[in-house]
Amino acid sequence: MKILIKNASIITMSKDREIFQNANIGIENTTIKFIGDIEEGFNPDKIIDSKDKVVMPGMNNSHTHIPMSLLRNYADDLPLFQWLSKKIWPIEDRFTSEHVYLGSMLSIAEMIKGGTTAFCDMYFGVEEIARAVDETGIRAAISRGMMGEDSTNDSTFSEVRSLYRNYYGAAEGRITVMAAPHAPYTCSDKYIHSIMNLADELNIPMHMHLSETREEVKECLEKYGKSPIEHMEELGLFRFKTLAAHCVHLSDKDIDIIAKNKVSVANNPGSNLKLGSGFAPVKKLLDKGINVALGTDGAASNNNQNMFEEMNLASILNKALCEDTTVVPAIKAIEMATINGAKAMGLDENTGSIEVGKKADLIIVDFNKPHLYPRLDIVSSIVYSAQASDVSHVIVNGKVLLENYELKTIDFERIIHSVDKVTKNLY
Amino acid sequence: MKILIKNASIITMSKDREIFQNANIGIENTTIKFIGDIEEGFNPDKIIDSKDKVVMPGMNNSHTHIPMSLLRNYADDLPLFQWLSKKIWPIEDRFTSEHVYLGSMLSIAEMIKGGTTAFCDMYFGVEEIARAVDETGIRAAISRGMMGEDSTNDSTFSEVRSLYRNYYGAAEGRITVMAAPHAPYTCSDKYIHSIMNLADELNIPMHMHLSETREEVKECLEKYGKSPIEHMEELGLFRFKTLAAHCVHLSDKDIDIIAKNKVSVANNPGSNLKLGSGFAPVKKLLDKGINVALGTDGAASNNNQNMFEEMNLASILNKALCEDTTVVPAIKAIEMATINGAKAMGLDENTGSIEVGKKADLIIVDFNKPHLYPRLDIVSSIVYSAQASDVSHVIVNGKVLLENYELKTIDFERIIHSVDKVTKNLY
Ligand SMILES: [Zn+2]
Ligand SMILES: [Zn+2]
Repeated sequence: MKILIKNASIITMSKDREIFQNANIGIENTTIKFIGDIEEGFNPDKIIDSKDKVVMPGMNNSHTHIPMSLLRNYADDLPLFQWLSKKIWPIEDRFTSEHVYLGSMLSIAEMIKGGTTAFCDMYFGVEEIARAVDETGIRAAISRGMMGEDSTNDSTFSEVRSLYRNYYGAAEGRITVMAAPHAPYTCSDKYIHSIMNLADELNIPMHMHLSETREEVKECLEKYGKSPIEHMEELGLFRFKTLAAHCVHLSDKDIDIIAKNKVSVANNPGSNLKLGSGFAPVKKLLDKGINVALGTDGAASNNNQNMFEEMNLASILNKALCEDTTVVPAIKAIEMATINGAKAMGLDENTGSIEVGKKADLIIVDFNKPHLYPRLDIVSSIVYSAQASDVSHVIVNGKVLLENYELKTIDFERIIHSVDKVTKNLY
Repeated sequence: MKILIKNASIITMSKDREIFQNANIGIENTTIKFIGDIEEGFNPDKIIDSKDKVVMPGMNNSHTHIPMSLLRNYADDLPLFQWLSKKIWPIEDRFTSEHVYLGSMLSIAEMIKGGTTAFCDMYFGVEEIARAVDETGIRAAISRGMMGEDSTNDSTFSEVRSLYRNYYGAAEGRITVMAAPHAPYTCSDKYIHSIMNLADELNIPMHMHLSETREEVKECLEKYGKSPIEHMEELGLFRFKTLAAHCVHLSDKDIDIIAKNKVSVANNPGSNLKLGSGFAPVKKLLDKGINVALGTDGAASNNNQNMFEEMNLASILNKALCEDTTVVPAIKAIEMATINGAKAMGLDENTGSIEVGKKADLIIVDFNKPHLYPRLDIVSSIVYSAQASDVSHVIVNGKVLLENYELKTIDFERIIHSVDKVTKNLY
């Protein structure tokens, strides 16, 4: 399959952040073959005219729990612990694999419509998530969230091995697997050591919630005399390539540890605001050269999977926190949402930017809208003016998943119908 | 003209915040005739089936400068004063009435598409704005921003009189007029007294920028020994019904003054963040019973006119600031965006809620989207999950301005074409 995207403005997010005007992109099978002039002899099967449109790398959602779409708007505006213990956990306990699968399909439909081409997930029932990824054509780094005191008789370890065996590199290479100790407050030290052994065995990176709330940090300091970040460094977690989700409440020492160990941070501004967790020190992290990516967190705490909102928040929120308009300029926010996300998932050799030889993971944003006019700066327009719903086309691994706003690999009506059926007695 | 909206979920925002399921709304000419069961003998000219849709009052954008859409994404990520003095003001100086008119048309197109039914504006060239309001069918409270030392030979006073004479109550009653001293730092005391005389003469309310930035407050304290709020109270401004835009940097004493004088506050979270101004103390204002409405500010500092974003921000931002998820719950955010906005503009007898006898100013949100599924709580869905682009229908004063996502009163292609022409040598 050969696709030609023509007449496009292109935000490449290549190393030198090159931007093209009125240029072309050639895609052959899964891969970007050329950018700029059309290669002689290139005979496309499909041509996408992108006049008045902007082509950019797809959004990389670096932290989410996609089956939680079934809990979207189920319970809001409650104190955090009451929300989790009285509302969220009891329902998750009743989730069957069908719920996990359908919740995943629903989230993937939303993500594709909103320009997300890859996501990093942590949940249970993970082979159902992998099945949804396989079917829909999106890219994902999947992990089984693990919590406990002792790994003896803990079936999640065999779940991770099975996920790895059945899905690592599967779906034309679109699926990878990470190890996921849930959080410092849900895993004993001994348990984290068992997970590190597992990660060594499978040679996979880490994905963990760290320093999300003020209480978490306080309790960790009381219990261990160390912050969550200090504690994990001491346990040796950071000898693995690690993606730390949230990192809201950090000391300067924590930030130094994150920088020194090249830990990637998944910043989830929407979720951190909505759950009243606070404001991550994004400027400080970026100033230290830390790879800060963006995530939505699950749809129960956001309540959507809209990376355009996160990108906008990352930019404007940190300007206000620093009372400085130059903080997180538009191009930096796009960087966080695209190439930094790819790095955080360990996928940046293949995706995260539009470059010859990389996988064709890209989106087309339709600028034929009042709020995207005039077109004085396409980078600013994407971050400050656009909505996720402006995405008209999504291509992942060279395959068109969204065409003229229409999902090509998901029968949305069928998904809704099935969700209705399986959630009848759920809530 | 009679319109029947049927099978709708309705968020009325009436005093008791009534919500209807599977109900109907009858509109006769400009007015809401019934809500609930269809009145016997009601013979509609148009039926809008609203299955899988939510009907709610239109958004009331309580602070903006709509012609500034022409400056959207013209200059971003710059220090505030450099942005204003080097970028924005020089261009505004070159604005002709054609620019003001076309910028207004562009913003109104965006606002209608995003579910805004009324807005409160402050700018120059105001009769062009009124003309755009008249033509497009939207509702507006318009003001001529005034700044200066001395009113002698100041033509803006006669502009306001002319605007009042030609447009107050015009366009089937959709236009009202306010007096608008621009800000404490751009108006001398003497000048503000002249504006108060004008407001007395015309019997119109006030619209003013107050306490937007830390510097403004500091300078006011240095110059007058009083905060902007204290200073305006002393000048007697608050004997007029007043809408104060921004109110970001307030002392507790300021908040008491605002409450005592029943001043309405236009909170513009998107603009305050993007311009690095800071965080308005919304919870404190609401706790004192102050009428807090929402606004986008101009498109140059936001960079859109998207009230769904402001509503979402108002809720989640204040949860994070207070580290309390119960702050600004979803229904309160809708209140700020609808009925509170109507109150702030002095239009709440006619608009801001869906009630029998009020003007039919309402919008229909299309829930047939992945991010609006499942539909467990429509109020939460509107605030936490929806996008402005989910609005499929807009009715103002009983007239359909947006139908199945299509603008009915604006030829968008023609506007863009004209904007292209008049901005050729502008930037
Ligand atoms: Zn999470
Ligand atoms: Zn303003």
